[in-house]
Amino acid sequence: MKKNDLQHVYDRVQPHIHMTPLLSSRLLNYSSGCEVYLKCENFQKAGSYKIRGATNAILTLNSEEQSRGVVTHSSGNFAQALSLAAKNLGVPAYIVMPNNAPKIKKDGTLSYGGIITECQPTIEAREMASNKIKKETGATFLHPSNNKNVIYGQGTAFFEMLQQEAEFDYIICPVGGGGLIAGICLFAKQFSVKTQIIGAEPYEVDDAYRSLKSKKIEKNITTNTIADGLRTTLGSNNFPIILENVNHIIRVTEKEIISAMKFIWERMKIIIEPSSAVSIAAVLKENDRFKGKKVGIIISGGNVDLEDLPF
Amino acid sequence: MKKNDLQHVYDRVQPHIHMTPLLSSRLLNYSSGCEVYLKCENFQKAGSYKIRGATNAILTLNSEEQSRGVVTHSSGNFAQALSLAAKNLGVPAYIVMPNNAPKIKKDGTLSYGGIITECQPTIEAREMASNKIKKETGATFLHPSNNKNVIYGQGTAFFEMLQQEAEFDYIICPVGGGGLIAGICLFAKQFSVKTQIIGAEPYEVDDAYRSLKSKKIEKNITTNTIADGLRTTLGSNNFPIILENVNHIIRVTEKEIISAMKFIWERMKIIIEPSSAVSIAAVLKENDRFKGKKVGIIISGGNVDLEDLPF
Repeated sequence: MKKNDLQHVYDRVQPHIHMTPLLSSRLLNYSSGCEVYLKCENFQKAGSYKIRGATNAILTLNSEEQSRGVVTHSSGNFAQALSLAAKNLGVPAYIVMPNNAPKIKKDGTLSYGGIITECQPTIEAREMASNKIKKETGATFLHPSNNKNVIYGQGTAFFEMLQQEAEFDYIICPVGGGGLIAGICLFAKQFSVKTQIIGAEPYEVDDAYRSLKSKKIEKNITTNTIADGLRTTLGSNNFPIILENVNHIIRVTEKEIISAMKFIWERMKIIIEPSSAVSIAAVLKENDRFKGKKVGIIISGGNVDLEDLPF
Repeated sequence: MKKNDLQHVYDRVQPHIHMTPLLSSRLLNYSSGCEVYLKCENFQKAGSYKIRGATNAILTLNSEEQSRGVVTHSSGNFAQALSLAAKNLGVPAYIVMPNNAPKIKKDGTLSYGGIITECQPTIEAREMASNKIKKETGATFLHPSNNKNVIYGQGTAFFEMLQQEAEFDYIICPVGGGGLIAGICLFAKQFSVKTQIIGAEPYEVDDAYRSLKSKKIEKNITTNTIADGLRTTLGSNNFPIILENVNHIIRVTEKEIISAMKFIWERMKIIIEPSSAVSIAAVLKENDRFKGKKVGIIISGGNVDLEDLPF
């Protein structure tokens, strides 16, 4: 997509989302040794950036498709986002959720009017359940991170950052399914060539790190991370974009994630979810790389189960 | 004080503090049935509004007094605030703290350079320790809530709200030592006569509620509340102001406080301390009173011990 088309994506999505604030913290700048700007998608509607992609994907369907509804499988934030985006646009949303998804995300999905079908927590079970719903209802399947229009929508988070604070030397973005970082790559390519895009991942699910090395999509052996939004793997549509445009992936330990999360909660008084803390942990860990630079960090969401905190 | 003098208080304090945001939430408006604006002093320097009063009080001392330092006793937020304000202005700060104060508040005080003396958690022990330091160092004692210049400084939070969002029908403010609500009364009298000022208190420490009824300063029998900032009682300087200007005090249960705190954390993604949740609980509890009105709520602070959460 060229500049104009990407601008159209933003214009289409913008009336349905919040322009979230770009926050900075003297203490975070001091601790990291660089100039950090947090794009606070934890304050976004439904608590994460995912509503951007969900909204864009629904709005690119024709009215007949819209009337039959949309279906997805998601461990959490995309489920809530699609439910709310669909509700806002008067479209039915069918959500397949693994039966071990955090309670707060199930409750959120229900409160936004999503119609939940539970399944076993495997990719296969998710896909089978989604296909069944698709056949029965005629709903359009929207993958949380591999659908092209979802990817474009997610990239609008970075487009807004450029309006809020000109160019960045680096963007650090958590990598789960790869939709957000791929969307950022597409916008950066057109609007901010000088920005280097860095991924952040837990060691426990470092599939993107290994995929960039092997140049093919690697799976995760375990999903043993507190960053529940990052347990999924890259997709056929977003991987080529990531391979071409992402410079480096920083891996962090579970301890570093929890400590970064606590740091932001205690000192900035904002609630970020573990998946977002991964990027904070990354800027603190490889601070030599970012010394004196202007670094944008996507705080992807704030949906945390307060009954199940790591501290 | 007249308008001009209060404007001077603000001009004196302003360069040393943050202009904190005034946030609203569609969900909170829906749940309360009124138009709510949160003055987010949880994002203030040192994590609470207390730095306003601390800064004003130090700046009204002469340079000889400043060089001898300031001393106070505080269970938490004023300790941190005075330490940071004093550090910013190059003044020594001696802090008497009860030995059961939350760890995060002790750590904060130390990190801002405050010199801590621990004492038993009684008013008598606090006063004895403060007097000893005053004698030994010549430091000026600044009471956290009953010093007149502290009271004026705290009121600047409301002055800023009026710049951010014109007039309010109501202000709801938590009542502990009474410094904040008294300061708000003084500014409201000059700049927003139509605003009704409502206090919020836990049932467990409802000394202000009882004091307004009996027209004399009542003590608390227990301090058995999660709202650790509200365990103290009113003072001789702030009580007459409160008696004259506060219309009503809403009392809430511990359960209501915790539930309000969780509501704000989960849905607004900001960290507020239990003392601030008391005001949220109040607007939800007596929502009939506020129906359709414009209500300002002071979120007094965000200093919470994450290792000791009620959920």
